[in-house]
Amino acid sequence: MSLHPVRIGLLGFGNVGGPLVGLIAEQRTDIAALTGLDLTVTRVAVNDLTKARPGLGDAVLTDQASEVIAADDVDLVVELVGAVDLAREWIGQALRAGKSVVTGNKALLAAHGRELFDLASENNVELLFEASVAGAIPLMRTLQRSLRGEPIDRIVGIVNGTTNYMLSAMTEDGADYSEILLEAQRLGYAEADPTADVEGLDAQAKAAIIATVAFGVAITSDDVPVEGISSVTSIDIATAQRLGFVIKLLAVVERSGAEAPYEISARVHPTMVPLDHPLATVRGSFNAVFIEGGAVGELMLYGRGAGGRPTASAVLGDVIEAAASIAHGSLRQLPGLGDALVRPPEAAMSAFYLDLGVDDSPGVLAQVSGAFGANSVSIKSMEQQGLGAEANLVFITHQASEADMAATIEKLTSLPSVKRVGALYRVMGS
Amino acid sequence: MSLHPVRIGLLGFGNVGGPLVGLIAEQRTDIAALTGLDLTVTRVAVNDLTKARPGLGDAVLTDQASEVIAADDVDLVVELVGAVDLAREWIGQALRAGKSVVTGNKALLAAHGRELFDLASENNVELLFEASVAGAIPLMRTLQRSLRGEPIDRIVGIVNGTTNYMLSAMTEDGADYSEILLEAQRLGYAEADPTADVEGLDAQAKAAIIATVAFGVAITSDDVPVEGISSVTSIDIATAQRLGFVIKLLAVVERSGAEAPYEISARVHPTMVPLDHPLATVRGSFNAVFIEGGAVGELMLYGRGAGGRPTASAVLGDVIEAAASIAHGSLRQLPGLGDALVRPPEAAMSAFYLDLGVDDSPGVLAQVSGAFGANSVSIKSMEQQGLGAEANLVFITHQASEADMAATIEKLTSLPSVKRVGALYRVMGS
Repeated sequence: MSLHPVRIGLLGFGNVGGPLVGLIAEQRTDIAALTGLDLTVTRVAVNDLTKARPGLGDAVLTDQASEVIAADDVDLVVELVGAVDLAREWIGQALRAGKSVVTGNKALLAAHGRELFDLASENNVELLFEASVAGAIPLMRTLQRSLRGEPIDRIVGIVNGTTNYMLSAMTEDGADYSEILLEAQRLGYAEADPTADVEGLDAQAKAAIIATVAFGVAITSDDVPVEGISSVTSIDIATAQRLGFVIKLLAVVERSGAEAPYEISARVHPTMVPLDHPLATVRGSFNAVFIEGGAVGELMLYGRGAGGRPTASAVLGDVIEAAASIAHGSLRQLPGLGDALVRPPEAAMSAFYLDLGVDDSPGVLAQVSGAFGANSVSIKSMEQQGLGAEANLVFITHQASEADMAATIEKLTSLPSVKRVGALYRVMGS
Repeated sequence: MSLHPVRIGLLGFGNVGGPLVGLIAEQRTDIAALTGLDLTVTRVAVNDLTKARPGLGDAVLTDQASEVIAADDVDLVVELVGAVDLAREWIGQALRAGKSVVTGNKALLAAHGRELFDLASENNVELLFEASVAGAIPLMRTLQRSLRGEPIDRIVGIVNGTTNYMLSAMTEDGADYSEILLEAQRLGYAEADPTADVEGLDAQAKAAIIATVAFGVAITSDDVPVEGISSVTSIDIATAQRLGFVIKLLAVVERSGAEAPYEISARVHPTMVPLDHPLATVRGSFNAVFIEGGAVGELMLYGRGAGGRPTASAVLGDVIEAAASIAHGSLRQLPGLGDALVRPPEAAMSAFYLDLGVDDSPGVLAQVSGAFGANSVSIKSMEQQGLGAEANLVFITHQASEADMAATIEKLTSLPSVKRVGALYRVMGS
C-alpha cells in the first residue's frame, strides 16, 4: 500500500505545539505503518521570529498565520495559539479555504462553537478539538464516535487540574486555601493570575463544550452557572471527610425529559463526592469524566488534563483523524447543532449540604426544619456539632431545586435562632 | 438534511441482541438527529424459530443466517452468535458480499482476526468489534481512533468481570475461593462451568485482541501465556493487603524496543496491584483498562465489562460507525496487520512476590538470598512471618525475567532449609 502524504501547518509553537512537532517526527514511521499516512509539519507560524526554535525540523517558520493557512503545501491546519478573536479569524480562514482544522481552544469553542462547526460543515471539512476538554482524555471522540446512540443522562467531570491539585492538597495536608494556592503557583500548577482556574471559568468553558458535543445542541459558557473554589475552607473539607465525602470542583452536564426536545443543564460548582465514588479517587492534577447512560451504565475516563506532551497526544490523535479523512476523502456530513433548551439555573436539582450556626435551645430544630419543609426541601440527615454558643447544625438534604434551596436559606436567615448561615455545597449521590 | 437509511441484519437475538434491537428502536429519533442516519433492524436470524421473541418490531425472523446476510434489505450485518466456526463462516460470507460487520466475538477474533481483517479490507468494508473487549468501555475506538500516534508502552487491564467480582468479594469478605465461586454462580456472575473465566481464557483472548489493535500486529490467544485465579487463596489476599497490595487478574500487553520491529509481550496472570494504583479501586464486576504511553502518560477507561444493555451500547456505537461509513462512502483503507515479534514468555519481565516456608535457623536467609542472587534476581524487600516451624519468608523482588525467577525457584526447591515454596505472584509498580 502506498503512503498518503498529509502536510500540516501549525499556528503556535509553544507548550503544546513544540511537543507536537517532536511527537510527529518521532512517530512518523509507526504512524505510517498503522495508518498509511505520511505526516509532516511543513509550516509553522509564531509571534516572535527572533526567538530560537529548536526542534522545528524542515518546517518553514513565519510570523504570518495567514501565510501558513493559505500555503499550497499545507493540507491541514493545527491552531494552538489560544487567543479567542485571532483564532476565530484564522480557523475561519482555514475552513473557508477547504482545510480541516484541529484546535485545543476551549474558550473559542465555548463562545463560537456553532459558527465554526457550521463553517466546517458548509466547506466539507473537519473541525476536531479533542484537546480542548480534559487534555489527553479521549472524551470528545468517545462522545462523537462511541456514544452517538447512547441515552446519556449525565456527565460529571473533574476537568480542571489546578483546582483538583489544590483541593487534593487541602484534603491530604489539611492546609488552607491561600497557602495551597501559593504552593500551586510556586510549582507551576497555578498561574500568577489564577482566576480562570480557581473561579471555575476554565471548567465552565469545558462544561459548555461537553454539553454541546454530548447532546448535539448549541450551549455556550453563558449557559453555564459557575462557582469556583475560592470560598472552600479546610474546615469544610474536614467536615466533608467526617461525613464520608471529598470536595471536588465538578462540571455537571445533564439532560432531562423522555424525548426531544430535552432540557439541558450544565453547571460548575464545588461538590461533595462520596468517598466510594470513582471520582473521589482522582487526585492531584489528574482529570476524570464520569458518564451515566441508560444503556452503557457507568463509564469513567481518567488521565492527564494538561501538560505539553499529554495535550500534544490528544492533538495528534485529531491530526491523524483529519489526515485520514483528507487522504481517503472520507468526510462524514453531520447534521448541524440543534437549539438548546436550557433548564433555568434555579430549576437545577441537587442534594445539598448546609451548615448553620444556631442558638442551642429547645425548639430551634423544629423552627429550622420548618424552614426546609415550608420550601419543599426534604432533610436526609442532620447532625449537631458543638454546644451552647458554638452549636452548629449540619444538614444534608434530598434532591431539591436551587430555587427551593435559596428560598429555604432566605427563610433561615430571617430566623432569630439562626446566628449564621455557613457553607452550602451540592452533594453527589453514590 | 435528508436522512440516510441503513438496514441492519442481526445474527442472534439473545442477551445482547435483544437489548440491541430495543435500543435501536428507542434511540432511532435521537440517532437521526445526531448523525443523519435512520437505523432499522430488518432481519434477525435465530436458532429456534418456535421460541417467542417479543420486541422484534417489524424485523423478519428466520433460522437461516445466510438468508439474512444475503438479503437485499440488509446493508450491515451484526453477529452476536458467539460460536467460533459458524461465526467465522458467516462473517466471511458477509464481508465477501460487501457488507460491513459488527461483532462482539472475542474467541473468533483472537483466533482468526487477521484473516477477517484482511477479508474486510479486500472487500472495502468494515469489521468493528468494540464489544469483544471490556464490554461497554470504548477501548477499541480509543486505540484505533485516538492513540494511533501514541507511543504506547503498556496496557494493563481488568477485562474479566467474573474474576474481578470474585477477587473483590474474597478481599472484602475474607471468604475462600470455592465459597465465592458458588456465590458467584448463584448470582449469575459465574457460569456453571466457570473454566473460561477463572482459568483466564476469556482474558487471554481479550489480551490477544488488545495487543493486535494497539500495536497493529497479528497476535492470537496462542501467543498469550495464561494463569487463572483458581489457586489464589484468602491467605494470599490477606498477606497482599498487609503489604499494601490487592490481587487482581490482569491482562498485560507490552511493547519493547526503541523502534519497529518491536517485541510484543501479552500475558494474563493474577497480580499484586499497589493499593494506590487506579486499578486497585476497580471493584465488583467492573472492568478497567490502564494505558501507559510516552506522550499521553497514564490513561484509564473504566466501566461495565459485561451485561446485555452495556454490551449492546458498545455494539450500537459500532453499528453507527459502520452505518455512517456506508451512508457517506467514507471507508478508510488501512494497512494490514504486521507480523508480530512475540517476546518469548520466559523473557517477560516483572517484579515478583514469593512466599517460602523455611527452617528458622541462622544462615538460612544467606542461603536463600544467595539463590536469588545467583540467578540475577535482585531482592527489593524481605519480611519474616512466624517463628520456628511456622517461619515464612516473604520476598518482593525488583524486575526480573520469568526465566531467572523460575531458575531461582528451582534452586530454592533444592535447598534443605527451604521446606515449602509457597505462592508466587507478579507485582505491579506504583
